[in-house]
Parts: sequence; C-alpha cells; structure tokens
Amino acid sequence: MVIGHESAGVVAKVGSKVKNLTVGDRVAIEPGVPCYKCDHCKQGSYNLCPDMVFCATPPYDGNLTRYYKHAADFCFKLPDHVTMEEGALLEPLSVGVHACKRAGVSLGSRVLILGAGPIGLVTLLVAQSMGATEILITDLVQHRLDIAKELGATHTLLLTSDDTAEQVVDCVHHTMFEDPDISIDCCGAENSTRLAIFATRAGGVVVIVGMGLPEMKLPLFNALAREVDIRGVFRYCNDYAAALALVASGRVTVKRLVTHHFDIMETQKAFETAHSGTGGVIKVMIHVQPRNTNNPVKF
Amino acid sequence: MVIGHESAGVVAKVGSKVKNLTVGDRVAIEPGVPCYKCDHCKQGSYNLCPDMVFCATPPYDGNLTRYYKHAADFCFKLPDHVTMEEGALLEPLSVGVHACKRAGVSLGSRVLILGAGPIGLVTLLVAQSMGATEILITDLVQHRLDIAKELGATHTLLLTSDDTAEQVVDCVHHTMFEDPDISIDCCGAENSTRLAIFATRAGGVVVIVGMGLPEMKLPLFNALAREVDIRGVFRYCNDYAAALALVASGRVTVKRLVTHHFDIMETQKAFETAHSGTGGVIKVMIHVQPRNTNNPVKF
Amino acid sequence: MVIGHESAGVVAKVGSKVKNLTVGDRVAIEPGVPCYKCDHCKQGSYNLCPDMVFCATPPYDGNLTRYYKHAADFCFKLPDHVTMEEGALLEPLSVGVHACKRAGVSLGSRVLILGAGPIGLVTLLVAQSMGATEILITDLVQHRLDIAKELGATHTLLLTSDDTAEQVVDCVHHTMFEDPDISIDCCGAENSTRLAIFATRAGGVVVIVGMGLPEMKLPLFNALAREVDIRGVFRYCNDYAAALALVASGRVTVKRLVTHHFDIMETQKAFETAHSGTGGVIKVMIHVQPRNTNNPVKF
Amino acid sequence: MVIGHESAGVVAKVGSKVKNLTVGDRVAIEPGVPCYKCDHCKQGSYNLCPDMVFCATPPYDGNLTRYYKHAADFCFKLPDHVTMEEGALLEPLSVGVHACKRAGVSLGSRVLILGAGPIGLVTLLVAQSMGATEILITDLVQHRLDIAKELGATHTLLLTSDDTAEQVVDCVHHTMFEDPDISIDCCGAENSTRLAIFATRAGGVVVIVGMGLPEMKLPLFNALAREVDIRGVFRYCNDYAAALALVASGRVTVKRLVTHHFDIMETQKAFETAHSGTGGVIKVMIHVQPRNTNNPVKF
Repeated sequence: MVIGHESAGVVAKVGSKVKNLTVGDRVAIEPGVPCYKCDHCKQGSYNLCPDMVFCATPPYDGNLTRYYKHAADFCFKLPDHVTMEEGALLEPLSVGVHACKRAGVSLGSRVLILGAGPIGLVTLLVAQSMGATEILITDLVQHRLDIAKELGATHTLLLTSDDTAEQVVDCVHHTMFEDPDISIDCCGAENSTRLAIFATRAGGVVVIVGMGLPEMKLPLFNALAREVDIRGVFRYCNDYAAALALVASGRVTVKRLVTHHFDIMETQKAFETAHSGTGGVIKVMIHVQPRNTNNPVKF
Repeated sequence: MVIGHESAGVVAKVGSKVKNLTVGDRVAIEPGVPCYKCDHCKQGSYNLCPDMVFCATPPYDGNLTRYYKHAADFCFKLPDHVTMEEGALLEPLSVGVHACKRAGVSLGSRVLILGAGPIGLVTLLVAQSMGATEILITDLVQHRLDIAKELGATHTLLLTSDDTAEQVVDCVHHTMFEDPDISIDCCGAENSTRLAIFATRAGGVVVIVGMGLPEMKLPLFNALAREVDIRGVFRYCNDYAAALALVASGRVTVKRLVTHHFDIMETQKAFETAHSGTGGVIKVMIHVQPRNTNNPVKF
Repeated sequence: MVIGHESAGVVAKVGSKVKNLTVGDRVAIEPGVPCYKCDHCKQGSYNLCPDMVFCATPPYDGNLTRYYKHAADFCFKLPDHVTMEEGALLEPLSVGVHACKRAGVSLGSRVLILGAGPIGLVTLLVAQSMGATEILITDLVQHRLDIAKELGATHTLLLTSDDTAEQVVDCVHHTMFEDPDISIDCCGAENSTRLAIFATRAGGVVVIVGMGLPEMKLPLFNALAREVDIRGVFRYCNDYAAALALVASGRVTVKRLVTHHFDIMETQKAFETAHSGTGGVIKVMIHVQPRNTNNPVKF
Repeated sequence: MVIGHESAGVVAKVGSKVKNLTVGDRVAIEPGVPCYKCDHCKQGSYNLCPDMVFCATPPYDGNLTRYYKHAADFCFKLPDHVTMEEGALLEPLSVGVHACKRAGVSLGSRVLILGAGPIGLVTLLVAQSMGATEILITDLVQHRLDIAKELGATHTLLLTSDDTAEQVVDCVHHTMFEDPDISIDCCGAENSTRLAIFATRAGGVVVIVGMGLPEMKLPLFNALAREVDIRGVFRYCNDYAAALALVASGRVTVKRLVTHHFDIMETQKAFETAHSGTGGVIKVMIHVQPRNTNNPVKF
C-alpha cells in the first residue's frame, strides 16, 4: 500500500467541471474525501463520515507518490508566498486547529498542553492564534520544550515518565497561577489523560488528541463532579482553510517544525530518521519534486 | 446535622428588601446558594461556585425541618394549582433538566437512558419535553421499566447485572433502529458508562448523572475516535424555573413518582422505606405540615 | 414552468447506487438539492448553497407533476402509519423546525408568534414540542386564532391592521406575565417586525420567517441596546428528519392544517381556493394519485 | 453629576470581607455593578441587569474623582508591568472584546470593521488576537486609517460621507477577495449599518457597536434571506479579565491609542481636546494622581 497523507502538490490535470483550479496551481491536499450525502456530511461533520476515503487508510492508498488524483474541492490553492512545504504542514496544523476549536480556545484562555511533539507544537501555535494568553506545555524531553518556548509557550514543564498525575498536578497549578480552563492531551498515555483531568478548572474542557490504549483507568468521577468535559479529536473538518489563512497571513510559522529533508528516493532513510527520534528531529519532509521547486513562486 | 434538600414550604417571614415574595406564599426551594461573585457565578455556572452553601452538604444543615431560612431569589413561588409535593419534586426534576440541557437534547433526538430510578425517570420526562422522539430506557428491575413505559418511554430493555456492555450494545442498536445521538447514564456503574460510550452514535454525547467509583476502566479510545463527548452533571443551574414551568403547564406529571407519604414524626420509617427499594417505592415524601395543606390552594 | 415544492410521492425507479430506497417506497421530498461541495454545504448550512437546485425556483421546475426525478438522499421514507399528506406537510413543518432551532426554543421558553397562518401554526406546533411552556400567538383573523388555541397556544391575541407596535406591546407583556424570550414573526410586515423587537426580553431573540418589503423602518436601537438578536430563516437545513420524527411519533398532528383536497386535474380550482382565503382555508392538498392511496399502508 | 467610567486607581481601603485586594494594589475598575440576583445575572449576562449601578449613568455618579468606592469583585489587580493608563483603557478594550465575542470572531475569520475611531481600533486589536486573518477597516479620515494600518489592519478603505452602501459594497468585496464572515459596525450611522448588511457573507454576522438614531431604514430582507444575523453590543460582560490578559501578555498594545494627557485640574481642556477631533486625537487621558505614579511599579 502507498502511504502518505501530509502533502502538497502541483496540479497536472483538471476535470472538465473543476472551476477552482488550473494546471500549474500549487495546492495543499486535505487527504480525506467523504461521501457528501450522509447525515454527518450534511450536518457539517464530514470527518465522521463512515464512507470517508482517506489517504493511506486501508483500503485506500496514500499520496507519497509522483502522481495522484484527488477531489478538487479538497485541494487548497497556495498563495505565491506560501511554500509547498508549508502546504504539506497544513495537515498537522489542521489537527491543531480542530483540537483548539473542539476545546473552545478563546480570548484569555489558559491552556495546558501535554506533549511537545509535532501535534503538541502545532496546537501551541494555534492556541496562541486564537487568543490563549497563558500556555503551559509539558514533555519528557527538554529539547522539545526549548522549541515550544521558542514558539511562544508561556511556561514549560519537564516531566519524567515516573511522575504520577497526582504528583504533577500541584506543580501545574502553581506554575500557571490559575488552573487551566483547557487541557489538550497530545500524548494519549493514561497518565497524561489523568493529569489533564485533575489539572483542569471546574467547568473546563479536556481535549484528547493523542490516541492511546483501547482501555484506560480514569478518575472519571473527578471530571464529572466538576463538569469538566472530555472530548476527542478525529482528524479535522472545515479546518484547512483556517490553517492556510494562518500560515499565509504570517501569524504562525510552521517551517520551524521541519528539521530534515529527503528526496523521494531516500524515503527509507527519511522514515528511519523520523522513527529514531534523535538528532532533534521533529518533522521530516520527503520531496517528490526537486526541492527548489517547492519554494514560493518567483517572478 | 439536619438532612433534606428536596423541599417546598410556606413563607413565614421575609426580609425588608425582598420583593418577589410575601408571607403565605407557597414556594419551591432551590437548595444551594452560591457566592454570586466568583467567576463561575458571574459566567452563569453558579453550580460550580466553590463557596456554595448547599442544604445538607457539610458543614451546612439541610431543610427537613419546620422552619428554615433561605435566600429569597432561590425560592420559586408556586402557582395555585401546583402542589407543595410537586414543588419538592422540582429538585430531582431540575437534575433531569440540567442533564438534558448538558446533553443537548433537541427536536428529534434519539436518547438512551440507563437506569429507571427516580433520576432516570425525570430525565425521561424532560427529554420528551425537549423534543426527543425516541427514548430507550434500561433497568435491572421490570417494575421500574413498566413505570417508564407508562411515562412515555418508546422502548424499554431489561438488563441483568451480568450483562457486559459489549453484549448489550447490539441489542440497544437493534431496538432503536438507529444509534442514539445521546446516552444519559443515570446509574454511574462502570458497566453502565461503558454501555453509554459504545452505544452512542459518532459525534454524539454521553452525559453521566449518576456518580460511581472514583476510578473507572473505560473504553475511552472508542469515544475519542468517534468524537463522542463525555459530560458530567453537577446538580443544576438556572433550571428550577424551567422545571416549574414544565409542571405548571401540565406538560409533565411528576406526581406519579411519589409512591409513599410520611409525616415528619415518621422520618425514620420514611428512610427505611426508601432504602428498602421494595413495595414499588420510587420517591418517598415527608410532610412537615399537615398533608392536606400541601394540596393546591382552594377558593 | 412547473410549480410545486411541498410534496410526497411513491418511488417508481431508483438509480443503481441508491441504497436507502426501493421501488414502491412512499417518501417525503425535501425539495432542494445543493452542490454538496461549497463551504456552506461542508459546514452544515446547505440551505445557503448558491448553487442550490430548488423545486419551482427558476430556472428549475417544481414537482406538482406525475413523475419527477430527485436525489435519493433528499427523499425521506415514510413509515407505514404516516400518510402521504403528512409527508407533503413536512415541508412547511420543516420551516417551523428551522425557525424554532434558529430561535433557540428550549425548555421553558416563552414564545410570541406573530401570525397564525400555516407557517405560524407549524411554528406553534414545533415550539411546543421543543419545550416552550408559554406561547402567545397573534393574528388579524379570529378563526385562525381559534385553530391556534385548539393546537395548544397558551394565549391568543386578535389584532387589527390599525394597531401600532407601540400600542400592542404592553398588551402582549400583560398577557404573558413575563416578556417573551423569543418572538417569531411569521408575517414579515413592518409593523409585525417592530412588535417583535419591542416585545422581546433583553438578551432574547427575534426570528423573522415571513419576508416582507426589501426596506423597513425599524427601531434597531431598541434591539441593539438590549442585545435582542435578529435572525432570518431561509427554508430549512437538516430539519426534515426531525419533522418526520415529530409526525411519526404522534407528537404533533399536522393533518388539522389541511382544509381542502383536490385532484391534480382540479389544480386551477385548488389555487383559487387557496388564494381566496375564505371557507376556513389553511392548506390545500392536490392529489396526483388517487386519494385513497395516500393513506397509510394497509396489510 | 460626576462623570467618568474608563478608569484605574490605587486601593486606599478595603472592606473586612475583601480577599482579592489589599491597600496599595493598582486596579482597573469595571464600572458597572449589577444586582447579582436577577435572571440575567444568574445566567451570565449581568450587563443586561435592569438594576445595574453604572458609573456616570444617572442617577449614579462616575469615577473621575480622587476617591471612589467600588465593589471589590469588579476591581482587577494590575500586574506590576501594566500601567495605570493601560488599566483605564481596559474599558474600551472590553467593548472590543465583547463585540468580537458576540460576533464569533474565530480562527481565519474575515472581518470588516466600519469606523476607525477608538472603538473601531480596539475591535481591530481584539479581532486579530482572536484569530481573524483578514481585516478591512473603513473610515472617513485617512489619519485614523493610517493608525489602523499601523496596528495591523490588512486593508483600509477611505470612504466619503456621500458614498452609499450600495456603491461601496463591491469595493469592499473586491478588496477582501472573499466576502467578510463578520462585519462590526463601530459607527452606528444608517449608511454604515446598511453597508455591514450588504457586505456580509450569507450565514455571517453583523455586530453593531455604535448606537445611532432610534429608527433606521434597513435592507432587512437582504439580511434575513441570507441568514445574516444582526446583534447588538451593550457594554461588556465577563470581558475585563480577558482584556487584562491580552494587555498583560503583550499581545496587544493599547498605549498607542492615548494621544493626549491632562491633569485632573485640566479636565475642561481635556474634554475640549477630545471633542475637537483635531491634532490626531484618539483617546485623552486625565490623571488624578501625578502622572509618573501611573507607570509600572519599579523595584
């Protein structure tokens, strides 16, 4: 099976009814195409469509390939000053957008983000853009926290894998002065979800992006009795346009997340690098076209 | 400590600034008075106020007593045709109102209610009133399901304590034709919460009213990946007026829930009856005044 | 051009990919089919799709005809006990559903409905079903108010065309005891919209269903300074299923609205009757099939 | 009557039950204190409280005075690095916060702001902070547009008082590429409100902050048939904390808005300057304390 679902490309051919694109357009590709006709689709939640055709989700191939056919309405034309790399990064950025919308991040929100991997970092960028004024981000790796700080986190907190949620929660509260309104768990480990629940202010929201084990032992009573809502995130829905607007307006800089580049012939090596988690790797970019053609259009 | 938080009474005296009440008014008593000034109070979530003074919640006494002092703005004047008993029942009814509001019950909602005890039954009544067109209610006791059917449940399902959520979910789906949009767990047992999660349609809501053990093993992944939100219910907030309007308009009949009556001198016996769970007991009413004075005002 | 957009029919033929319908199914027809792919469609507001193909809206023909082709996902299969006439009435009922959803009718809502014509009456039925506990409906014709009363209006108020909004508003407030949270204007006349604004409680909502003149003189300041929101209604969106569930569950009775019946050969006469407004006419039904086949299926 | 409602001060004395403040604290003063107990207050809309005591709103005095008594829960302690001037500016900033919340500004919103006076400018700052990625602001005065540009407006548009809404709307659409989701009218003139309605995308929102004449001639049909909602703004509610967090976090710079300073003895001159509208005046600050004590605390 072909993999790949974070991608951008150049339009090589368009169908006769396509009006929004022409050959040569550089586009970001939202990788799932729904049925359009079920209740979920009609109600504006196409990400929940049971007949979704999603790149690299069996039985459907992905788009880490030279040529690929996609629905025109799920291709987003990039302005000239936005690079193809940024276009590909709209995919994880859209996850951050969806997570922050599900969380209801708003002006003056105090947000706890658990995990400073790629998803934690895009969530940080988006939460800032939506008005969060205080953001504490945690991780097990100092290097990731350094990048989070550089990207604008108000506070960072280095955890160890031995820390229990019960031990850490006071430290979170002490660091943020006031309890977070919103906690976004980008790990999905049981301990992380537990911390999110304990830490969040009564009436707040816990959003869980990272998916962990099928079953978890949770302090549900603690959440219920304080009306702390628990919400999942499944991909994204109507979020690509906002993600593109964020990047195009210069309000967020996603390039910082790409730490390594490879040509398509080096795909094996690219994956090894990503899996290694070493060398400061965050996101690895595989180029199907010669790299320089991924830069903004020159005149 | 004095217990009691589901009550109505007759106004014996009013403060000099009270405008909404006069001596002799029959009132339902919303049993918690918040601080009014914290963020929760100002934002319309006074049920989450950390300085709430709530009847029969230590260190505060309840109101199962002959005379009791309460904030006038938490007393709701009963129209002449509404009985004192109905006034007392606004308390559990408000829990049902809050649960259904938290669940977002709306026109055409398909609702699964787990548990046909007092809270399950008031939730049933309220869900109907908010437009739910299909309601399946479950219980371990057939007698309770019979009452639920009488009160308007579309479907009932008798469970045994051995049934696992995994076993029952197909039966729920089969009975309702379409998966419920909303599941309201009025038990709080782990198995019940598990069933609520498995049964609910993608994009739906699980509301948990009954509070169980501090820790639960849950199929959280199942909920997260289908964006099924999990929400708790803590008492009620701005719900008494709607509960009263429901009863006063004749749209719901709560009297059916009161199966036994006792005078205040028989309080011990009243509690024994309630705890026994036998004799078809649902709600037990303790009368502080002579019973007939609890009827609607006669002219 | 063929007219007709309130209709039900029997499936005569299905496309090869259609799964939800088979030949012989009796269906209600939601008369607009959107493009599915624009932002409005994807965000769950397909009624705002600029490329909507809507029955009897130029250049598209309507469906007052013997055979008609329609998108299968906008056909709603009627249960056996629901008549074809009720199926046709889902169209105006869906307008009422959309209006009440836009208005945020909820448990305990106090609603003012201006106009007791067909749309006012379906709005009344829906508002009740969503939990409104007090509903005042106005009209210029006593006969219509009588039907409204029969259908469950709490209060009715006969107006004359000379009454100004300023004169009537006190009477509305006096009749309802408390100011309405919500006013739904089903007339669209300037005077009616003015009354809706003046009458509504601070923080409430005015929904305007009836469309009047392009320009109106309005007391906008009065609405703005009290944060009374003004919202329009354009057809319906994701409302047919709820409308059908309401009828199928027996919670509303729409049959009462049909006062006259005609065969398709008598269409001219049918329209004359509707336009006359006399003889107690509310809705006129034109039958394409022999009338008795519009009854529920018999076994 | 004493005027003044945009103010900050130093705590001189506290009541015995006050816990959030101590003598010497520098605080911003939210100038209205509601009754806390009516439905509006309990439901989180205290700005609509009919018994609000609001500075400089008859019969209540304002706080342009040396000493002033205020409810402690409506005083917001300023961090050391926030100046007293910024504290006073939280009042207009909160209007901008309330307007943007009412408008539902979110990530990727395209916003049209009509009027680049103080309220238009704070609305611009807040809209950016909430994620708006494209903002067009209009005014009759180029100087104001220059400041708007400096503060981050994506586009500016100079209008003349002769322009009709019908003439300008195409220019707005052309400048913004896509129609705005949201229009915020900070003028309140009939022509401005008309433009807001015509310009806004179907399904969008028009928020009107500036209050104009009691009666207006409006193209209401245009708004209704496209489901463009019309919402007013009355002061603010639960917005001061977010406004303070915005300023304290450095995400917005409000100081730029203060163009002139006066001592309390020069109040007459201060008002003349403000009313003149010349000399590039935007906001005029009157200092009750020696000006330098309004700077951040030094250590």
